[in-house]
Amino acid sequence: MSPTSPRIAIVGVAGRMGRTLVAAVEQDAQARLAAGIVEPGSSLAGADVGELAGLGKLGVAASDSLEAVVDNFDVLIDFTAPQVTLANLAFCAEHGKRIVIGTTGLSGDELAQLDDYKAQVPMVFAPNMSVGVNLTLKLLQTAAKALGDEGYDIEVIEAHHRHKVDAPSGTALKMGEVVAESLGRTLKEHGVFAREGQCGPRSDNEIGFATVRAGDIVGEHTVMFATEGERIEITHKASSRMTFAKGAVRAARWVAERSPGRYDMQDVLDIKG
Amino acid sequence: MSPTSPRIAIVGVAGRMGRTLVAAVEQDAQARLAAGIVEPGSSLAGADVGELAGLGKLGVAASDSLEAVVDNFDVLIDFTAPQVTLANLAFCAEHGKRIVIGTTGLSGDELAQLDDYKAQVPMVFAPNMSVGVNLTLKLLQTAAKALGDEGYDIEVIEAHHRHKVDAPSGTALKMGEVVAESLGRTLKEHGVFAREGQCGPRSDNEIGFATVRAGDIVGEHTVMFATEGERIEITHKASSRMTFAKGAVRAARWVAERSPGRYDMQDVLDIKG
Amino acid sequence: MSPTSPRIAIVGVAGRMGRTLVAAVEQDAQARLAAGIVEPGSSLAGADVGELAGLGKLGVAASDSLEAVVDNFDVLIDFTAPQVTLANLAFCAEHGKRIVIGTTGLSGDELAQLDDYKAQVPMVFAPNMSVGVNLTLKLLQTAAKALGDEGYDIEVIEAHHRHKVDAPSGTALKMGEVVAESLGRTLKEHGVFAREGQCGPRSDNEIGFATVRAGDIVGEHTVMFATEGERIEITHKASSRMTFAKGAVRAARWVAERSPGRYDMQDVLDIKG
Amino acid sequence: MSPTSPRIAIVGVAGRMGRTLVAAVEQDAQARLAAGIVEPGSSLAGADVGELAGLGKLGVAASDSLEAVVDNFDVLIDFTAPQVTLANLAFCAEHGKRIVIGTTGLSGDELAQLDDYKAQVPMVFAPNMSVGVNLTLKLLQTAAKALGDEGYDIEVIEAHHRHKVDAPSGTALKMGEVVAESLGRTLKEHGVFAREGQCGPRSDNEIGFATVRAGDIVGEHTVMFATEGERIEITHKASSRMTFAKGAVRAARWVAERSPGRYDMQDVLDIKG
Repeated sequence: MSPTSPRIAIVGVAGRMGRTLVAAVEQDAQARLAAGIVEPGSSLAGADVGELAGLGKLGVAASDSLEAVVDNFDVLIDFTAPQVTLANLAFCAEHGKRIVIGTTGLSGDELAQLDDYKAQVPMVFAPNMSVGVNLTLKLLQTAAKALGDEGYDIEVIEAHHRHKVDAPSGTALKMGEVVAESLGRTLKEHGVFAREGQCGPRSDNEIGFATVRAGDIVGEHTVMFATEGERIEITHKASSRMTFAKGAVRAARWVAERSPGRYDMQDVLDIKG
Repeated sequence: MSPTSPRIAIVGVAGRMGRTLVAAVEQDAQARLAAGIVEPGSSLAGADVGELAGLGKLGVAASDSLEAVVDNFDVLIDFTAPQVTLANLAFCAEHGKRIVIGTTGLSGDELAQLDDYKAQVPMVFAPNMSVGVNLTLKLLQTAAKALGDEGYDIEVIEAHHRHKVDAPSGTALKMGEVVAESLGRTLKEHGVFAREGQCGPRSDNEIGFATVRAGDIVGEHTVMFATEGERIEITHKASSRMTFAKGAVRAARWVAERSPGRYDMQDVLDIKG
Repeated sequence: MSPTSPRIAIVGVAGRMGRTLVAAVEQDAQARLAAGIVEPGSSLAGADVGELAGLGKLGVAASDSLEAVVDNFDVLIDFTAPQVTLANLAFCAEHGKRIVIGTTGLSGDELAQLDDYKAQVPMVFAPNMSVGVNLTLKLLQTAAKALGDEGYDIEVIEAHHRHKVDAPSGTALKMGEVVAESLGRTLKEHGVFAREGQCGPRSDNEIGFATVRAGDIVGEHTVMFATEGERIEITHKASSRMTFAKGAVRAARWVAERSPGRYDMQDVLDIKG
Repeated sequence: MSPTSPRIAIVGVAGRMGRTLVAAVEQDAQARLAAGIVEPGSSLAGADVGELAGLGKLGVAASDSLEAVVDNFDVLIDFTAPQVTLANLAFCAEHGKRIVIGTTGLSGDELAQLDDYKAQVPMVFAPNMSVGVNLTLKLLQTAAKALGDEGYDIEVIEAHHRHKVDAPSGTALKMGEVVAESLGRTLKEHGVFAREGQCGPRSDNEIGFATVRAGDIVGEHTVMFATEGERIEITHKASSRMTFAKGAVRAARWVAERSPGRYDMQDVLDIKG
């Protein structure tokens, strides 16, 4: 942690994601933990943010008001709920702050409201902040362009814990879409989500999905490109929500030096296009 | 190859499986290649069996008649077609020979005919001669019994080449059945062959199957047992038909020292029950 | 949790392993959490054991004395330190209790002291309580016996987090030893721990080890048996210390119905020999 | 195969690589098999190239002279020996032909001689023609640049058959070099090729190598980037020499439309830089 590192405030430090964000900032030598916010009126206001995160005392007291810590921080990290996030974004606009938003579930209307602030606030918004997942999407695009028309069969295999209710995972679908788009295909036409019985030989352009549900698997995704003689497999394995927290801190460091605008993780990682 | 090793005859040395069997016998220090049979009237009769297999001269001429080589061999290996195999089995019974049968596609009636000879002929019959697959079935049984009632989720994942027309593979289904049987379940009731859309959380007793079809994958099977905190995965990967040929040669060596009876690969590997 | 389930006491509920054990008992429908012990004089005495474990109130107050809860429990689970464990074992002998010991680092002398109590106390002792690791050792024994003399090359591949200081892992070495013993080999003579430069072709009987150190990998072990045509891979992946806690609770349920004796996890899993 | 597809000549059609090249051309709808060369005076001159490759009659007779077929082909594919290749290159220069060179083992001096022809001959030269390996190198460069300075540990794991005499493989070293270069490191300083005993925790910048030797594994390489919370793994698996043959045919199609110059597979795949 250097004295010139951006000063980070985290919203929701009493929750699981908030506590993980605290740990991620602490681990990052180029970021400083400057403030932690809890809900207005919470009995945890005043508690040490490090102790809340199980890290021991860090000397930063949780506050139940952004206003109260407005002079302490440069970048706000917010993984909360759409309405809370939009209020915090307005606060950042008013006070010249920057923001990293990992909140999910925004409606089309709420997404549009983010853009209302892009001329004033340097902001990074991404529904999946994982550096690895975003990099993987880029690698898939490169691979699909190099291989796709040359007789390589493409399959997406994903595994998640037993509690997951949808299949394939949103990330698996996103991976399939990136590949399909690079090849002028669509999942609607070319996605194959089940094979059972006498289904005949594989067609050339299909993109197959295979789904595993078992135990406590946090999330594993592999995209395979296979032809006679060889296979290329690009795999991402998440082992904890730390992957999202570290991506957010990286985004915070990056956005600390940017002009106003709405950015995503591809911008942060410099792998756009 | 020792002078006391069993002398092996191979039926169909002009075909791909026959040639692989020749190579497998040649590699095995405890088996001797003694005869190679081609179809009656074949122009390849008289050719060197090693040259047919691309191994160079081995000094064994292909014969188009079992009768002609009856004094040369102890054990016959037969991966041909049901009617040919039954005729060869009758020949073995008449002449006091032993036989290893890897022929597939026998009808229920033809299977019953095998038993007509079991009092006279020491025979090994298995539709899949792979040592690894048969061992894997045994490992699955052990694992299922130790884990099954303790909250481990079971999934079978298989991958094959793009030309395979059925899914899941017969071997994957067999693996699932062995696991199900060990746990008092059935695939009919507990097998899950596709997950797509909002399918809800995994149920406790289901046995899931995931299928990949791509490129030139010869055959890969993994059975996963997963719970909170750990996973056990048992995997078999076939890389060539050599896996079947080597199993057959091992069976030939084993059956050379057995009394009449109909055996399978679990007997050969001594992992029955 | 049924009223006839064994009542479990856990030593060290303020520590990370103790808290995980509390969670494992809570998840197990056939075990009841009956007592939790903290160090004598700890300020946490009286706190709710569930709250200490981050599970919410469970109605069991932590006690700083085994004596005080002697009538509440049937089986003690102890993952502490050798001298504490031996004292607790003596207490169990005196009061007709059963014990599961996951403590590591016992000296030869301390191990021998366990045996002093085996005529009185039903006890399970194992330095690695993971059900999966113990099952894997059994599977390796079965596989080695079936494959070892048939030209299968054996390799052990393990991966752990960046902080691990020894290589290969103790579990990898144990796996290698089980395989070696099954084949009449020794790691001293046949273990190969590094390959670098012009090292020549692989010898037939060597058992190779490959080690990966990266990120936060909790612990992954694969033993590969490979020959021309096929590979069998037996893999264990730990994802959290829950794997040890669940094994201990399973051992506690099992030992609740046993006569005095010193047992290990192979007994619990019924995979001895 | 379209009538405007480039006409391909293959040198060494009696050898294993040559026969694989014939099969790869046959499979490619955009390439035409036009000639096959055998050694001067070979008894196989005149034999059908398809029959030599085990594909049945293709109507192209093997020739023992390039001169004799000079009017039949546009691009020559050569996987032979350095001196043969240089003579064939001179022939191509003289007769306005193009060439794809997969020959390995060229000395520094011989490599320099290739450049003597680059103003006249459109040529692709690459010691490893595999499309997948070359793409993987590109993916590694992208990944290393995005992740390398952010606390990701990098490990290279490779597996090959039991006959391979060197470790790690040349391809594994190349992958490590590409990663090292992207990060301003060197394998000389940061490569770790063995871990055994009490070796202490992993250092930040080391690039670890792990080597497996077993059975008939053609060649598998994985580069892992791991940090707290996630792993990215980029894997290449070769299953036959067809991977090199298909890359060569792709290069032949590509170079058929290029101006004179010396190109490599990164040019062919359009993933340079």
